Amino acid sequence: MSSDRRTRLTPDQRRAQLVASGVAFLAERPLDDLTMEVLSERVGVSRGLLFHYFGSRQGLHRDVVGTAAAALLEASTPREDLAASERLDDTLARIVAFVREHRGTFFSLVRGVASGDPEVRREVDRARDVTAGWVTEGFLELGVGDSPLLRVALRSWVNFTEEVLVELALGTDRPAAEIVAFLSRSAFGVVASVTGDAVASTRPE
Amino acid sequence: MSSDRRTRLTPDQRRAQLVASGVAFLAERPLDDLTMEVLSERVGVSRGLLFHYFGSRQGLHRDVVGTAAAALLEASTPREDLAASERLDDTLARIVAFVREHRGTFFSLVRGVASGDPEVRREVDRARDVTAGWVTEGFLELGVGDSPLLRVALRSWVNFTEEVLVELALGTDRPAAEIVAFLSRSAFGVVASVTGDAVASTRPE
Repeated sequence: MSSDRRTRLTPDQRRAQLVASGVAFLAERPLDDLTMEVLSERVGVSRGLLFHYFGSRQGLHRDVVGTAAAALLEASTPREDLAASERLDDTLARIVAFVREHRGTFFSLVRGVASGDPEVRREVDRARDVTAGWVTEGFLELGVGDSPLLRVALRSWVNFTEEVLVELALGTDRPAAEIVAFLSRSAFGVVASVTGDAVASTRPE
Repeated sequence: MSSDRRTRLTPDQRRAQLVASGVAFLAERPLDDLTMEVLSERVGVSRGLLFHYFGSRQGLHRDVVGTAAAALLEASTPREDLAASERLDDTLARIVAFVREHRGTFFSLVRGVASGDPEVRREVDRARDVTAGWVTEGFLELGVGDSPLLRVALRSWVNFTEEVLVELALGTDRPAAEIVAFLSRSAFGVVASVTGDAVASTRPE
């Protein structure tokens, strides 16, 4: 059965199927547990084929984490058709929904993945940088002055947000709207702390 | 020479010396590189003695990380003789100084250490919890209302602070006083975002 299916998939499709299975694994168990043996049994293909596609367990991990990180980024890409004042809340709402739909994947990305391979860590850090860039653009559009400190503040706010999402989105059943409102206020609070302004003066109504 | 010294140290002193050497190693290279072989060469004792003291490489890692985390915590213990309004800035100033004096140790603790062993990760997380507890106590003394959201906010602010310290205290030579002032304002900003108040209304003059 699996060899029948194998003949029908192109190499790219086969590879995508294997990576998707690895991402699904990440939803249940930490990355460190994802060995060639485990994936081989899970998908019903030989270890040889896995080595053919990924070269090594490390190569597999990089592809799986890269794909999971890309899925989170895609789910949280800002909607450019929205005004900057609405864009942050909309993005946060989609992130909270993604985190709750893909609990294990998110947890593994932000907590477990820091493990081992520096390249895997860089992959996750790159995704954080992209998110921070989007949030920064939104604040610049709102008229906040750009500065190195603003960039550090919003990059660090991404780490703050990950912890909040682990604790509130995964750890409680608090309504998504409350989490979004809190995270949004916290971003404005952090931006205000760059200049020393009061939060209320920069947050739009 | 090293065997002469060995006879003069009590087992506790010897163990402390070995752990201190491991912490010093952490200042230069990631925890993952700290093997029994490496430490054995560094300190000039046999691998057998290291196994006697630590049982395994994992045991060594736990002791080294535990000691490094304890040193950071000790350096950042709030001074109870200060008023709550001054205590946060004083603590932050000592943390920035510690981070700059022990650059590699701090970086390894907050970035590299997440690797591998769950017990090592828990050790670092426990230190974060303790720090968050201290900061929370200070805000409660200042009259901020306690709530589960306040706890999550300040626990997550510790992650924010680690990223800021990596970027500003390690990555730039920005004056410590500026980093302290920014971190302090950001804590008040995050606290304000719990209730939706303006930052200015909770930050003392």
